[in-house]
Amino acid sequence: MMSPSYQSLVKKLQRANTLGSVIGLMGWDEQVNLPSGSGKRRAEQMAILAELYHNLATDASIEPLLQELEATELTSDEQVVVRHARKEYDRLTKLPAAFVTEKAVLESQAYHAWAEAREKSDFTHFAPYLEKQLKMANEEAAFLGYQQNAYDYHIDRHDPGMTSAAIEGLFSELKKDLIPLVRQILDSPIKARIDFFKGFPVESQESFLKEVTTRLGFDYTRGRIDVALHPFCAGDAADTRMTTRFHEDNPLDSLFSSVHETGHGLYEQGLLVEALGTALGEAVGMGIHESQSRLWENQVARGKAFWKYHEPKLRESFPSQLEGVTSDDLYLAINAVTLNPIRVDSDEVTYNLHIILRFELEKRLFSQELKVADLPNAWKELSKEIVGLTPEKDAEGVLQDVHWSGGAFGYFPSYCLGNMIGAQLWYTALEALPNLESDFAQGDFSRLLKWLRSNIHCHGKRYDTGELVKKVTGAEISPAYLIRYLKERYLPLYCG
Amino acid sequence: MMSPSYQSLVKKLQRANTLGSVIGLMGWDEQVNLPSGSGKRRAEQMAILAELYHNLATDASIEPLLQELEATELTSDEQVVVRHARKEYDRLTKLPAAFVTEKAVLESQAYHAWAEAREKSDFTHFAPYLEKQLKMANEEAAFLGYQQNAYDYHIDRHDPGMTSAAIEGLFSELKKDLIPLVRQILDSPIKARIDFFKGFPVESQESFLKEVTTRLGFDYTRGRIDVALHPFCAGDAADTRMTTRFHEDNPLDSLFSSVHETGHGLYEQGLLVEALGTALGEAVGMGIHESQSRLWENQVARGKAFWKYHEPKLRESFPSQLEGVTSDDLYLAINAVTLNPIRVDSDEVTYNLHIILRFELEKRLFSQELKVADLPNAWKELSKEIVGLTPEKDAEGVLQDVHWSGGAFGYFPSYCLGNMIGAQLWYTALEALPNLESDFAQGDFSRLLKWLRSNIHCHGKRYDTGELVKKVTGAEISPAYLIRYLKERYLPLYCG
Repeated sequence: MMSPSYQSLVKKLQRANTLGSVIGLMGWDEQVNLPSGSGKRRAEQMAILAELYHNLATDASIEPLLQELEATELTSDEQVVVRHARKEYDRLTKLPAAFVTEKAVLESQAYHAWAEAREKSDFTHFAPYLEKQLKMANEEAAFLGYQQNAYDYHIDRHDPGMTSAAIEGLFSELKKDLIPLVRQILDSPIKARIDFFKGFPVESQESFLKEVTTRLGFDYTRGRIDVALHPFCAGDAADTRMTTRFHEDNPLDSLFSSVHETGHGLYEQGLLVEALGTALGEAVGMGIHESQSRLWENQVARGKAFWKYHEPKLRESFPSQLEGVTSDDLYLAINAVTLNPIRVDSDEVTYNLHIILRFELEKRLFSQELKVADLPNAWKELSKEIVGLTPEKDAEGVLQDVHWSGGAFGYFPSYCLGNMIGAQLWYTALEALPNLESDFAQGDFSRLLKWLRSNIHCHGKRYDTGELVKKVTGAEISPAYLIRYLKERYLPLYCG
Repeated sequence: MMSPSYQSLVKKLQRANTLGSVIGLMGWDEQVNLPSGSGKRRAEQMAILAELYHNLATDASIEPLLQELEATELTSDEQVVVRHARKEYDRLTKLPAAFVTEKAVLESQAYHAWAEAREKSDFTHFAPYLEKQLKMANEEAAFLGYQQNAYDYHIDRHDPGMTSAAIEGLFSELKKDLIPLVRQILDSPIKARIDFFKGFPVESQESFLKEVTTRLGFDYTRGRIDVALHPFCAGDAADTRMTTRFHEDNPLDSLFSSVHETGHGLYEQGLLVEALGTALGEAVGMGIHESQSRLWENQVARGKAFWKYHEPKLRESFPSQLEGVTSDDLYLAINAVTLNPIRVDSDEVTYNLHIILRFELEKRLFSQELKVADLPNAWKELSKEIVGLTPEKDAEGVLQDVHWSGGAFGYFPSYCLGNMIGAQLWYTALEALPNLESDFAQGDFSRLLKWLRSNIHCHGKRYDTGELVKKVTGAEISPAYLIRYLKERYLPLYCG
């Protein structure tokens, strides 16, 4: 029996969340539908929605409710909800209004400075804004009680419970095995052919990916997929909006982006609709979210079993384009590995090195070992050491990603964390679900989805990142699974 | 130099308007994009937005600002803004909260009852809800000071300055000429062929209508057109969202719906963006809005000059479909006249009779001459007399329109008012702009748009419906122009 105070808290959280979902939808619309000349109006709409959201989420009546509930015996569900409500309420109320406003202005300015700097490949144009973002990131952490370890605050925001030290341990272990593995694959005389990806009509790509994502389990009665400049997944369990993009000469980009976003979408759709607005209906964090998208994209959709079922379908959709392309050619193209200076254009093997590089630099920036002014050189040196190449210019190096312009520090590690967790979940699922890949070869992915639903999705934020992984897999987060997976998938292809 | 109080009022109006535009966009999204299973979430989103909008629009600080400004000497622009702000503020604050809530609940219930009643063609299922809506419509009028003439209140809400008596005068004059004209056309042995409208591919229809609407002047850099179940135009000058629908065997439906909505869209886009949120950036009302859509749809796009330019383009888009169809066949099909029991399926000639019928019945309902229970019979009798046919069942008669279920009384007359005003503006434009139709024959519609921009659009709500017509045309609103137009267009075709 829920107490009136608890009910009252939940109602307030739900109201804020509902308005937040409108903001999410307006953001989706901005990427998908907004006419080119309507940007100013949209900015005004977003500003007032943000203000109203802040009012709801920081309503003064929430504090006494939280205090009362924190002093009450609660069920474990209620504890989860109250604990996370407190965390979010503090984050929103402990930052002075002037600070929040200043940060919003900075974000907008820094974004434009970054875009221009990247355009001109001129880091000095962006440096003062990055400096300011870093300063404010430290201040924000201090406001929230992280005086000594600001970077940990930002990491925890993306992956509850994780710390810089924990990630450092994981990444250094990963790096040890990954760098030689990448070398081994790249040194192989076997190279993927991609010359046959020419003239794949967009309509056929679209219907193929709709078929695939439906088969994976995405529920189109409460979600959709549209075209945007960048693929993303917005919305929530009640209305999940994914995007993709199409190039006639790059059908795999569209397909795997869509499957990736479907992984995110399946997680959102697996959260409990009735718990929407509370921590029980919300994703744990970025790392777990990314583990879902990566698992479906990589372990599942780049695998042999998936293609056993889908290759004939693909050939039906694109008979002339795939004429003379063998199954081996196709499978190798799906699992092509090449060194690329750009993170987002990288394959699942080398991608992780890009993240380790960024984590290393963020860590040094926060510890003040590294000055912003020295960042471009540090990037180049570390990139050579970790990724194995030196970008020719800053636009393809330190300026390539948008994240820092928005002050999103501690975000990059989640991508690689997601890869590690995805692999760890994969091997756990394979053990728990005998002959799982025979299902895939029949086009049936439902056992895996069901397993993820009941092991990951249904918990919402009940467990922190590491706790959840431990609970499901029986082990601490470890890079060993990712390494095992990469070796099992790529060595037979390139070094068999 | 604007006073601080005036600036403060405008800022508050703009904030409410900006949030209102979000509600509009969410409504558009609901019709265009919403997944079938996401309706419950959308209802929650709309509810909280409505509440927040109401809070902004009824902010207690507005009343003293209005009082102060009403006692101050203002510029004529400021007077317009303050006068309309008062009207809207009173409407929102004079209705008790309990009344507003009750009405919202009733609207939802009545909508479902109406849909079911129409489905079963069973008026008794809907009658109690209509009764209640009528009662609340009278109460609402009384709250706003219309104790004696509730119907006038509702008419004024749709067309500022109009009254039941004024409309009655116009409609009875119109009816006198229109009924014999309809008879004359229908009695003609000349009938439009429409058998050749078969297999017009949707993609080609879509690109044809994009070309047409762009040529008419719709600015796609701050607007778009999408597919929805019913055509409509949402949004405002900053972001105008139109919809249409496609049937392979009815290309004219899609084309003329789109041109109609483009007329609405051009009006919205012609309103002053910088005045958005105040009466100076808002449409006068439904009648003027409809005059714009009808003028572009009928006077312009069903005319010979328009088709002189567009017929070759249409034939280019649909060469095989239009093989063997003469120009005369095509033009007659575009201007087909047939008696239809359904208002929305009627042509521009007989359409007006459907409106006169509804006005007559609304008037009697409000004067209590007519009881709700007697409405179906009254509909049948009057329909025979005015439209010239008796619907076979209530689903095709009294139950065909959704409006009354939402309590939207006084709305129907605007459609016919729009037809009259459209024709009146048309003849004024023809006089003011020599050889206008030669422009059309060259595919150039810019002089007409510019004229509408500077005579109608740019004024916002500065003038009431009748004032604006008088100012632009030099005459009171009169049905004579519509009759003249219908005779000039249809008699040569059917009774030449």
